[in-house]
Amino acid sequence: MKIGFIGLGRMGAGIASNIVRAGHDVIVWNRSREALLPLEELGAKTAGEPREALQGDVLISMLANDDAFHSVGLDGPLLADAAKSLVHVNTSTISVDFARHLAAAHAAHNVAYVAATVFGRADVAAAGKLTVAAAGARAAVERVDPVLRIMGQHVFFVGEAPEKANIVKVAGNLMLATVIESFGEAFALVRKAGIDPEAFYDVVTSGLFAAPAYKGYGRLILDQAYEPPGFTLKLGLKDVDFALAAGHELNVPLPLGSLLRDHFLEAIAKGFAEKDWVSMAEVSAEHAGLGKEGRA
Amino acid sequence: MKIGFIGLGRMGAGIASNIVRAGHDVIVWNRSREALLPLEELGAKTAGEPREALQGDVLISMLANDDAFHSVGLDGPLLADAAKSLVHVNTSTISVDFARHLAAAHAAHNVAYVAATVFGRADVAAAGKLTVAAAGARAAVERVDPVLRIMGQHVFFVGEAPEKANIVKVAGNLMLATVIESFGEAFALVRKAGIDPEAFYDVVTSGLFAAPAYKGYGRLILDQAYEPPGFTLKLGLKDVDFALAAGHELNVPLPLGSLLRDHFLEAIAKGFAEKDWVSMAEVSAEHAGLGKEGRA
Amino acid sequence: MKIGFIGLGRMGAGIASNIVRAGHDVIVWNRSREALLPLEELGAKTAGEPREALQGDVLISMLANDDAFHSVGLDGPLLADAAKSLVHVNTSTISVDFARHLAAAHAAHNVAYVAATVFGRADVAAAGKLTVAAAGARAAVERVDPVLRIMGQHVFFVGEAPEKANIVKVAGNLMLATVIESFGEAFALVRKAGIDPEAFYDVVTSGLFAAPAYKGYGRLILDQAYEPPGFTLKLGLKDVDFALAAGHELNVPLPLGSLLRDHFLEAIAKGFAEKDWVSMAEVSAEHAGLGKEGRA
Amino acid sequence: MKIGFIGLGRMGAGIASNIVRAGHDVIVWNRSREALLPLEELGAKTAGEPREALQGDVLISMLANDDAFHSVGLDGPLLADAAKSLVHVNTSTISVDFARHLAAAHAAHNVAYVAATVFGRADVAAAGKLTVAAAGARAAVERVDPVLRIMGQHVFFVGEAPEKANIVKVAGNLMLATVIESFGEAFALVRKAGIDPEAFYDVVTSGLFAAPAYKGYGRLILDQAYEPPGFTLKLGLKDVDFALAAGHELNVPLPLGSLLRDHFLEAIAKGFAEKDWVSMAEVSAEHAGLGKEGRA
Repeated sequence: MKIGFIGLGRMGAGIASNIVRAGHDVIVWNRSREALLPLEELGAKTAGEPREALQGDVLISMLANDDAFHSVGLDGPLLADAAKSLVHVNTSTISVDFARHLAAAHAAHNVAYVAATVFGRADVAAAGKLTVAAAGARAAVERVDPVLRIMGQHVFFVGEAPEKANIVKVAGNLMLATVIESFGEAFALVRKAGIDPEAFYDVVTSGLFAAPAYKGYGRLILDQAYEPPGFTLKLGLKDVDFALAAGHELNVPLPLGSLLRDHFLEAIAKGFAEKDWVSMAEVSAEHAGLGKEGRA
Repeated sequence: MKIGFIGLGRMGAGIASNIVRAGHDVIVWNRSREALLPLEELGAKTAGEPREALQGDVLISMLANDDAFHSVGLDGPLLADAAKSLVHVNTSTISVDFARHLAAAHAAHNVAYVAATVFGRADVAAAGKLTVAAAGARAAVERVDPVLRIMGQHVFFVGEAPEKANIVKVAGNLMLATVIESFGEAFALVRKAGIDPEAFYDVVTSGLFAAPAYKGYGRLILDQAYEPPGFTLKLGLKDVDFALAAGHELNVPLPLGSLLRDHFLEAIAKGFAEKDWVSMAEVSAEHAGLGKEGRA
Repeated sequence: MKIGFIGLGRMGAGIASNIVRAGHDVIVWNRSREALLPLEELGAKTAGEPREALQGDVLISMLANDDAFHSVGLDGPLLADAAKSLVHVNTSTISVDFARHLAAAHAAHNVAYVAATVFGRADVAAAGKLTVAAAGARAAVERVDPVLRIMGQHVFFVGEAPEKANIVKVAGNLMLATVIESFGEAFALVRKAGIDPEAFYDVVTSGLFAAPAYKGYGRLILDQAYEPPGFTLKLGLKDVDFALAAGHELNVPLPLGSLLRDHFLEAIAKGFAEKDWVSMAEVSAEHAGLGKEGRA
Repeated sequence: MKIGFIGLGRMGAGIASNIVRAGHDVIVWNRSREALLPLEELGAKTAGEPREALQGDVLISMLANDDAFHSVGLDGPLLADAAKSLVHVNTSTISVDFARHLAAAHAAHNVAYVAATVFGRADVAAAGKLTVAAAGARAAVERVDPVLRIMGQHVFFVGEAPEKANIVKVAGNLMLATVIESFGEAFALVRKAGIDPEAFYDVVTSGLFAAPAYKGYGRLILDQAYEPPGFTLKLGLKDVDFALAAGHELNVPLPLGSLLRDHFLEAIAKGFAEKDWVSMAEVSAEHAGLGKEGRA
């Protein structure tokens, strides 16, 4: 297929590389030009302007936030230039509200639109092992299915309204952030009881929590490996805010989201905004009166 | 080894059976006599009185609560009758406070005491795949290590003070209960957005949360498989209370524990005390205004 | 003084009436014309267009929300028509973010701007007994001081940046909403213990809580006097959202705000959006398994 | 009347003095003898042993905790020596569970028992302006009514089961502790916005919150007047624990209680156990990243 790709951040670069390697005819665009080089080396074409990426069968976008969509024009103007048969596959993590806005903009310009949100960090993206939640008109989702299966091992259809993929993403991220809080409190308790948190980590991750989220986050917290961040605490708060906003709109109280929001704000107030979001666990340690000197 | 076993509930029966099958010389005691039959068939002896179970190399106890220890006499009187070389391996889930009391009672009677708390439900116990957190004097723990390895695939030493195994247990259970709340809120959000919760379950358990705790609890919640209970909500609250009590004593705030406690109390106020503890997820659904008719 | 007044809702009507009665030369404007009549009878002139209200010494606005400012033009265009010496006194409850936007718009049009937020319900406004928190350039605040003292018994200067009056308002409202939650939980506890909540109300409001907020809200909750609403639950949630947004911007965790938000959302999910905001207390009763039949 | 009085702490001394001044025939007992002197000067007799205080018409007790009752013998043995017509009026703040235990002990010894819990600090007690919540058999409560009216300006009957007075007390204390949290969060927000918290205090306490609890606690927090403590944070946590325990027994979730408990524990972990309980407000400031240097 002829595939355009806009947004070569850490996640996007991995996904795009896999699509090029799978033999598709890929044209990439990115605001900063240096991100284009590795893709070019793999065999991708580079677009001089974003609109060139909308002339094929599929456009994949992986942008950081609403502003990025706006500055590229993907929330409207650029859509007027899209190829008639184009399906836009948006993999970005955005608010449910903006997701709805984008879906409406595509409908207005008659451009097929699929939201395909992804779970997994950059290394998982590079390995083509993301989990993908796709939503949109069935015909459009089916058309892009081969591409989704290059991104991820597991691809699930979650509804015809594109925003549903975004709600799945924010709900899943809420569960992920909860793992950090969960470890934060448990580590604080065992540390204050004089138990080696490494031993506790071994116990809980050997059986019931033998899952990547627990093994990975627990390890990072134990090592206080907060820099460089895999995902910043500031962006983590944004994700929690997305979940709370979705809950607000639908009148769904999310007390875990409320707790996480408060702890993220506290972590930011204490200077952790640009550190890895697992550093939120320091909040629980600090509340228990544990200083860094207390690390086992 | 010559091993006594007291407490043949659902967990205890599975553990004891594996120890008999492993070829040890086992004598079992249980308040209700009918639980003894299956063990007898496997080749275990049955004790007429609890004290007979304290005459070998190891005594393993798996009792439901403090009262059970008291009525058997394992919190004191019975210890006077123990064989000189006996090591008591207590696998019961008890409060940290009572754990300390038991350790002191054993010290007073000069009986070696190891706390070996276990993670996993009855089916995992029967399969010999529990995770075991053991604490006690190193020599004693080493002596019983072969037995601990029959109970569980993963055995970890978490400290010399026996109560540390109990703290690991209550901290781990807090993390487990959090999984229920986490699913409860996420399911409420996606259901109210008109998303099939089955699809959401598939997304989150396929990758990051591909762990038994998530797959098992999520499945039970989706199926509303609350009866018969694998573990009652009332006992779940008791475990959360244990964690909060440990946090109280050590001045460790546990806001997740507080949230869980409030939701367990609400679930009990609404009649779920004897249902499976995953039914706490109904609280989140109910707060969002979702009735049972709303189940996707 | 020559005073314009825009916004004759329940609060605005009371304030405007007092200003007319105090002998000022008042011209009023309101979207719905029928609200003008009582003011006219008191001696106020009525404006055909909003701009007529900006030609005197002072403009007082009491509008419901951001949209109302926008549709009237008070967030920009209308300011170009203001008398040179005009001081705009904005008494509306708005978000801190919008407050900052309004201050900037006034600065851009060289119109003096004072935020004077008020505490008290409509009956208190009508009695001229509001508490007023005023912020803005000192000279401007001093100029309008006589008018502020007609509105309220107690007038406090809280800073030179107008938004500070809005922050005081949202922080105060957070404390007010907390009173509802506080009664909600306490009433649930005593009712479930078989104690007459009227007796409990008498105990707590006779001494330590002998304050209007407690006497008033407690009474309304006891009587379940939720309709007609003095202040709707939906607007109550908006106020809590304002506080949370201010906290978010300043990195101040507000766990009471988070709790209130969750309970307001639940109340709305259960159909209380248009009832008085004290009806949030029903959430606590319901969590305790108390039905309406349980009212003492 | 002939009145015995046991427990001359800060609260008890004030109450006892008023009863002596009112002309009753009072005999006092206290563990530490020096507290007896001021009462003797006022005209009270002093008892050599607690039992002498149980020989009149009324015994009033004001003891610090369960242990004090036990060491005096008022939870049983001493009751065997009581005058036949004695009514014991217990004004102590104790757990609901222990309250029930005491009521049963009195019933077993055929001693009339009234729980009369009081609201107000030591200065209010000395002024005879406490609020009193009394519970017990109506005849007994009526008999001691003249004495209750010496203690407090406001006396309310809250039920025939004595424990009801204790539940009213713990529920009221929960509301009081909430005021501290409420100010803590609001002060953190306004301080971080650069607003003088004194101005905020003036605004909120001038009207809606013109109640002793707010004026007093807000003032103490603004002045960081944490030492000497009027009431220690450690005792404050005990009161919150009493409320949570009552809620647990009755299946009433108390999320405010949970939040307070977590913040009290954090304050204790940070060294505030023996400071005034209003110092809990420092927790909110600290979460917002405000150091003491930030005090306006």
